[in-house]
Amino acid sequence: MKKAGILGGGQLGRMLLQEAANYPVETFVMENDEDCPAAHLCHHFVKGDIRNYDDVYAFGKKVDVLTIEIESVNIDALEQLEKEGVKVYPTTAALRTIKNKITQKDFYRDNGIPTSPYVIVKNKQDLNEHKSFLPAVQKLGEGGYDGKGVLLMNQVYDLESGFDAPSVLEKKVDLEKEIAVIVAVSANGESVIFPPVEMVFDSRLNLLDFQLSPASLQEKTLWKTEAIALKLVKALNSPGLFAVELFVDRNGEVLVNETAPRVHNSGHHTIEAHVTSQYDMLWRILLDYPLGNTDAILPSALVNLIGEEGHSGPAVYEGLEAVLKMERVYVHLYGKAVTKPGRKMGHVTILGNDRVDLVHKATKIKQSLKVISR
Amino acid sequence: MKKAGILGGGQLGRMLLQEAANYPVETFVMENDEDCPAAHLCHHFVKGDIRNYDDVYAFGKKVDVLTIEIESVNIDALEQLEKEGVKVYPTTAALRTIKNKITQKDFYRDNGIPTSPYVIVKNKQDLNEHKSFLPAVQKLGEGGYDGKGVLLMNQVYDLESGFDAPSVLEKKVDLEKEIAVIVAVSANGESVIFPPVEMVFDSRLNLLDFQLSPASLQEKTLWKTEAIALKLVKALNSPGLFAVELFVDRNGEVLVNETAPRVHNSGHHTIEAHVTSQYDMLWRILLDYPLGNTDAILPSALVNLIGEEGHSGPAVYEGLEAVLKMERVYVHLYGKAVTKPGRKMGHVTILGNDRVDLVHKATKIKQSLKVISR
Repeated sequence: MKKAGILGGGQLGRMLLQEAANYPVETFVMENDEDCPAAHLCHHFVKGDIRNYDDVYAFGKKVDVLTIEIESVNIDALEQLEKEGVKVYPTTAALRTIKNKITQKDFYRDNGIPTSPYVIVKNKQDLNEHKSFLPAVQKLGEGGYDGKGVLLMNQVYDLESGFDAPSVLEKKVDLEKEIAVIVAVSANGESVIFPPVEMVFDSRLNLLDFQLSPASLQEKTLWKTEAIALKLVKALNSPGLFAVELFVDRNGEVLVNETAPRVHNSGHHTIEAHVTSQYDMLWRILLDYPLGNTDAILPSALVNLIGEEGHSGPAVYEGLEAVLKMERVYVHLYGKAVTKPGRKMGHVTILGNDRVDLVHKATKIKQSLKVISR
Repeated sequence: MKKAGILGGGQLGRMLLQEAANYPVETFVMENDEDCPAAHLCHHFVKGDIRNYDDVYAFGKKVDVLTIEIESVNIDALEQLEKEGVKVYPTTAALRTIKNKITQKDFYRDNGIPTSPYVIVKNKQDLNEHKSFLPAVQKLGEGGYDGKGVLLMNQVYDLESGFDAPSVLEKKVDLEKEIAVIVAVSANGESVIFPPVEMVFDSRLNLLDFQLSPASLQEKTLWKTEAIALKLVKALNSPGLFAVELFVDRNGEVLVNETAPRVHNSGHHTIEAHVTSQYDMLWRILLDYPLGNTDAILPSALVNLIGEEGHSGPAVYEGLEAVLKMERVYVHLYGKAVTKPGRKMGHVTILGNDRVDLVHKATKIKQSLKVISR
């Protein structure tokens, strides 16, 4: 049996391991928290710091193939492991390009991949030189995650609260729609693409409200989206699974927002809604099996369950019974003992042919199912 | 989080645990083999003998609710645990009725549930008194599993090789079709029923060849099947998941063959082919959530992967690549390091609307995918 290691033990690792149990593979997870969502679902849990060279190196020496479920890992250790013959998917080169938002932006520019105009700023002083560039979005070069490390700079006075660190200042896009596409690339360079999904945002909260799949796109936009995503992963030149987040602006232009070199929140729906899930697909890549079919079985909606504001402590899933009674609705809870505001605690996938019904059910679930603490 | 224990750590436990990761539940497994398919997928693995009173009792005291994935467990310990307030689903009364083929047959008779005529035999000498009852099938009262403990008695000389132990001698049924139905019963007595499936046997080998879902049945037969299965589980009067295997004879009569009080091989297809899988359903019962929907998303076929004759040793899955390339085909390998003749090593589910295509693909998979050792 091949030995596969995952750096990080959150919900993405958890869902990867649920799927791993269909394959002949011995699984290893490294994470600092022994009670993390993935810890009990692997053959070998290793307590360690995924950002520490020695920890990652020692962990990698145990396995045949390594992957990540979060970008904040020690790439130097991965590079050394790669040199010593451990397969690292995504490759460290791809990971290095993506991990820093500055090199990621430069990569798009250098490879002719459409993305919003940007300037690189070294610090807060530098930031203040770019008043004429507003409205814009400032993104920290390193360390951003789940909406952290991103600031909206609409007006000049917003610059005052900007990050004082190397970052990207991106022109704000006149947004029509936010979409995401997952592309899978095998070790021999074959690739398959999942249908784009569409994010339905609440503009007041800047939180992912829910997701619809497939995205409702004009044919030309769909064509552009797929072409851009495939060009992007080809340029990355790495096996692995890649989630590409894109903007469609009001002129119908498609611009890459950012890329994640791993299984991704925007692909949770593939577990039930697609012939092959993103998790199954990554195992096929890691274990050198043929890529799977990306077709949808049915259209779907995806609701993230986020810890309610004002609630920190042991998690209680208020309204769960009612949601479990709904038809063609799939609840995934990540087994996190403690909730806190904004924490990703689970997700719900809804299947159905009728888009109006999907939106209706998604809204109902968002309103009725709350992760609180008593 | 509720604590749930599973007695037995085979592939059924493995698939239960894959599904458990969608619910807030702390999982415990007891099994003697630390490398069993379920061992690495639970929060707490306990090495122990599920047939030993002390082991089962100590294990049961750790949890809120207990279930089984095999019948050969220590029922006395479960009974004591039940008295002390641990929920045992299925109840020990139901388990006791079912575990012994003799009490199981008597239960059908006493509750007016159609089953083939039978006599109870104490030993081999007793067996020889029933020459006029042939052709028949002798089933060991206790200890039979996966085709073991069952002997065909077509002719008088077959009696010579009969079991010398308490057993049931059942009249051979003039078989038209063998079918199975899964019924789920919640703690408050609600029940839902999955559509019947049909076994396609190879008559020479007496091995399950493949399974088709839904079973192709006349409306009246379907109606009878469902009525019998529901009557049976109502008489068992226990929460849990029950797999009822039935014969349809050439006169259209429906007779219960036997019942398993647990998730079952005949329900593997529900993972991908039904809105709610049998595994999801059992967690809903164990955790007191509402029952799920049993509708099929698509018709399906199920192929069991059995260790090839003449091969014992580290398992190799010959032909796996080709099967992973087939569309709407789902491979589940149970992670057993060693194969031996007849051992259940995995299964493959095929989805599709066209029955001919399902049969075609099932046959192709049976011919091309072999579990061998080199």
